[in-house]
Formats: sequence, C-alpha cells, structure tokens
Amino acid sequence: MKKALGIDIGGTKILYGIVNEEGEIVSDIKKIPTPKTADEIYLALKNVIAQYYDEIDVVGLSSAGAVNLENTRVLSSTPNLPDGYNEIDFSTLCDKKVYVENDANCACAAEYKNGAGKGFNTVLMITIGTGIGGGVISDGKLFRGAKGNALEVGSMKIFADKRQKCTCGRYDCWESYASGTGLKNCAKTGALEYPEFQNSIYKDKNCNEITTYDITDGMQKNDAYSIKVFNQWMEYMFVGLVSLTDIFNPDCIVISGGMCSFVDVDGLEKKINEESVVTNVTVKRATTGNNAGMIGAAVLALG
Amino acid sequence: MKKALGIDIGGTKILYGIVNEEGEIVSDIKKIPTPKTADEIYLALKNVIAQYYDEIDVVGLSSAGAVNLENTRVLSSTPNLPDGYNEIDFSTLCDKKVYVENDANCACAAEYKNGAGKGFNTVLMITIGTGIGGGVISDGKLFRGAKGNALEVGSMKIFADKRQKCTCGRYDCWESYASGTGLKNCAKTGALEYPEFQNSIYKDKNCNEITTYDITDGMQKNDAYSIKVFNQWMEYMFVGLVSLTDIFNPDCIVISGGMCSFVDVDGLEKKINEESVVTNVTVKRATTGNNAGMIGAAVLALG
Repeated sequence: MKKALGIDIGGTKILYGIVNEEGEIVSDIKKIPTPKTADEIYLALKNVIAQYYDEIDVVGLSSAGAVNLENTRVLSSTPNLPDGYNEIDFSTLCDKKVYVENDANCACAAEYKNGAGKGFNTVLMITIGTGIGGGVISDGKLFRGAKGNALEVGSMKIFADKRQKCTCGRYDCWESYASGTGLKNCAKTGALEYPEFQNSIYKDKNCNEITTYDITDGMQKNDAYSIKVFNQWMEYMFVGLVSLTDIFNPDCIVISGGMCSFVDVDGLEKKINEESVVTNVTVKRATTGNNAGMIGAAVLALG
Repeated sequence: MKKALGIDIGGTKILYGIVNEEGEIVSDIKKIPTPKTADEIYLALKNVIAQYYDEIDVVGLSSAGAVNLENTRVLSSTPNLPDGYNEIDFSTLCDKKVYVENDANCACAAEYKNGAGKGFNTVLMITIGTGIGGGVISDGKLFRGAKGNALEVGSMKIFADKRQKCTCGRYDCWESYASGTGLKNCAKTGALEYPEFQNSIYKDKNCNEITTYDITDGMQKNDAYSIKVFNQWMEYMFVGLVSLTDIFNPDCIVISGGMCSFVDVDGLEKKINEESVVTNVTVKRATTGNNAGMIGAAVLALG
C-alpha cells in the first residue's frame, strides 16, 4: 500500500506523520512550532520531508487559504501565516509529488476516507469555529470549482434584506449567524430583544460581553434566555444546512470545528430530513479531530 | 464521431433528433405529442428509437423529475406525466445504452458542451420559470449527489424567519421570491407596501391579480411601482446567485427558462463579482433554447 507524508501547516504548529491509502496514520505524529517567516517555513518543511523521504511515495500538505488548481500554491491571504507564504511553490520541496490543499477540503477528505463519513457516497463537511467553512466529496471526487475556491458556505446569505453585518463587511453571511461569532451575535440580539433576559443570570452583563461559553453554561443552569439564544442559533444552523442538503444531496453531513461539541446533531438530522426536498441524510460529528488536515492532505495526495 | 438519439420528454410533446459528441444536432428535429398513458409513452419511445436505430450509438432521454443513480428510471413525482411513468425502466427500450437524466441537468450539459457555457470549467445553470431549477458541471462532470437529486437550488432559503410560504408548503424557498411565481409575489407585496402603488397604472387592480407581464410591461411604461417591484425581484435573484457563486465557484452562470429574457444578466454579473468572496464569474443567457433537453441528454449519454 502506498504511503504519504501528511503535513498540517497551522498558524502556531506544523503537525506531521505517515498516512496510508486507507487514511490510517502509520507512524508517530510529530509537531514543530510554525516558523515566523515564509523562508523558514519552507526550510522546515524541506527538513521534515527529508526525514521521511525514503518511506513515502508522495507528500500532502494542508493549509489555510485558497489553493490554486494545480495544488502547488496557496493564493489567498492567510492572516495567521507570514508575508511571502503565497510565494512558496510547494512542488519544489522535493522531487516526489507534493500536493497542497485547503484545510477544509483536507478535513472533508479525512472524514470521507476514514472518519464519520466513511462508506457514504456524498459527504458534506461543515466546520464551525469562529467562522464556517466547508467541503464536499461525491463519488470520491472533491468539488473544487473553477479556481479551487468552492464551498465558501460561510458566505451563503440567510437573509435577503441586509439585516446583520458580518465581520467580512458583507451582510447576512450564514457564518455571522451560525458560527461561534454567530452565537455571540445571537446572545447580543437576544439580550436586547428577549423578555427572558430580564430574569437571566446574565441580566447585569453588557450585551456585547456575553460569551459563547456563557450561553452553553447558562443552558446547563436552565437559564431561559440562554436556552432561547441557543435554540435561535440552532435554527440558523438548520436553515443553512437544509439549503445545503437541497443543493448537494449529501447522504452524510459531518460537523467539525471548535463549536461542533455544542451542536445537537441528532436534532438537526431529524429536522433536515423533515424539511429537505431530497432524500435522507445522516448528520454526524467529525472523528478525525486534530489529525484531519494531516490525514486528508495525505489521502488527497495519494488519490 | 459517435452519435446519440436525443429525446426530450415534455408534458405536451416529445422532441427528438440526432446529436454528435460536440453537442451539434445533425438531423432534422422532430416532435410528437406526448401520449396520455405510461404504456403509450413507452411504445412511442420504442418506435422513435427504432426509426434511428442503425444511425446511433446510444440514446439519451431528458425528463422532468429526479432520476435514479443508474440513470434508468424517473423516481419522483412528475405532475405533467401520467401515473405509471415512474415504473418505466428506460434501459429496456432497446439493446443499445439508454441513459435518462433530469431535464435541468440535461440543460446544464447542453449549455456546457455547445451553448453559453462552452469553454468554461465550471458551469452553473439556473432555470427560472414558474419555479427555479439548477445543474452544475465542473471539470466535465455533472454533480449529482448521493441519490441524483442535487441542485434543488429553488429550495434554498433566503430568509431564516419564516417570512413567506412557498407553494411547496415550506417557508422562504428562493423560488418563492425569484422565480416567475416570485415576481408575482413581489408584485403583491409591493402593492401592499410601496407608496408608489398609489400612483401606479395598476392602482385599481386587485394585488393578487397583477401578473409578471404587468410588471415587465409597466417597466416599459416607466411605472415607478413596476420598476421597484422588478428591482426587488432582481435583488432576490442576486442574493441566491451570489450564495451559489460562493458555494460552487463557477466561472460561468447560465440563466435559462421562461423568465430568463427579463433578467438583467450584465447587472447581475457586475453585482456578483463585487460581492462574492470567490473569483470572477461570467453571467450569460442560455443559447440552446428548446433543444437543451435533447442536446444535453445526448451529450450525457455519449459522455
């Protein structure tokens, strides 16, 4: 079976290990801090690859940002990575094939091959953190679009009347309602609008300072305001997911990211199947966790 | 070059002709009325195929409704086609390959191969009639989803607060705002809400009876109410299209269907490129017209 060196380039650390064609990690997982300059990142990657060179067939890299159609460069701005990063031609790192892909697409590939989406035909992966990202694989093929930028699902609009400004400057992006930032926005709107706020455990807080943690903690404490905020957030999540179900006809939706533990996946699955015009979908939490980028990049490089 | 018999099964007529691998029609186009029963439709198709049998390699059928993954049957309800239609196994029509596909997907394939989308990598086709349908082809491959039902874009929600009921019974489907039905809904809402209605040429009409024709005609006559209704309809169109641009990263969006002549494609292209987070898209009107189903079914059968 062929093997890839999977490397996940994050803002703070670079994670790597050997992955086989089944998406299984077959070495120790190692990590180094992400260097501060593009030149140093390039050198660090060269050194990592040199250590494994004889054991591997290809190299897969997972990175933030949009990737070119040839899978050799990161094109878009990547706030957590240094200037000059976009200049790197990753294919020059070694004389074996080096394949770079966007982290959301890598995570989708990891879940499809050896995670929650294993065995399904069409896996839609939705990553819910500060924002919302996505990827879709159908019939074994990642959908990349004309320039490799597809699945910017966080920018899907869920209102058409310019109701709420997103941090990106546009209006009514799904991620301004249904991400971690979205939950904070729901908390703020709820504090101003819901009568339940008057009796809430947070009634003395500034509405801008109520955190996502406050809301999830408030739910545990049966705080009516927190429950109403959370339910509104889940409704926004649902609206986006049912639209994407009608658009992609997935048989599996995998939810990942920092907010995924808060999401009621069973409730979403039930509601989506009641509402969607297409056939049944299973909603699951991601299982590949922090290794998603590494596994997915390796699997895609081998594919 | 291989040839297909392309057949478009409509509610009132069946259209057919020979199409080559370039999507060019290379015979006369013929039509027969659609028979009233499923058995008669099956027999009519058998007769049509028999006439061309020696000249063709494969048969492509375009039909309303969702098609199974094997492209042999129509699964969903098709209000304009008779009971028993879903029972037909089209692969038994002759001993050459017979391939059936949903009409929206066929139209997308026709435009991609030999229409407005020719030469583009990722073509998103949006059909605007009574409702809204869609199809997408990227890298030569139609995106079908887990069960062949993808691209139900008309059901994408453009509000998340249950604002307007769609004819399908759900709330806030894009097609209830941006289709032909959507334009009528905009006219009604506008009659109730816009002060311009008081001075409109339609001020004495019942708001339920203002037609799409009234609005387009009113625009020609510089009626302020009609212009405002139309602009609102275009805004709803835009909101859906910019979301789909971020989702699919198409380099070409092709607009077709009965309402397509009313759509301001240049205005939409400009606004989408200003607003979308992904790279440039061209917006064009479809060019294959009434032959779209026939051409697309043939191209897909040959592909």
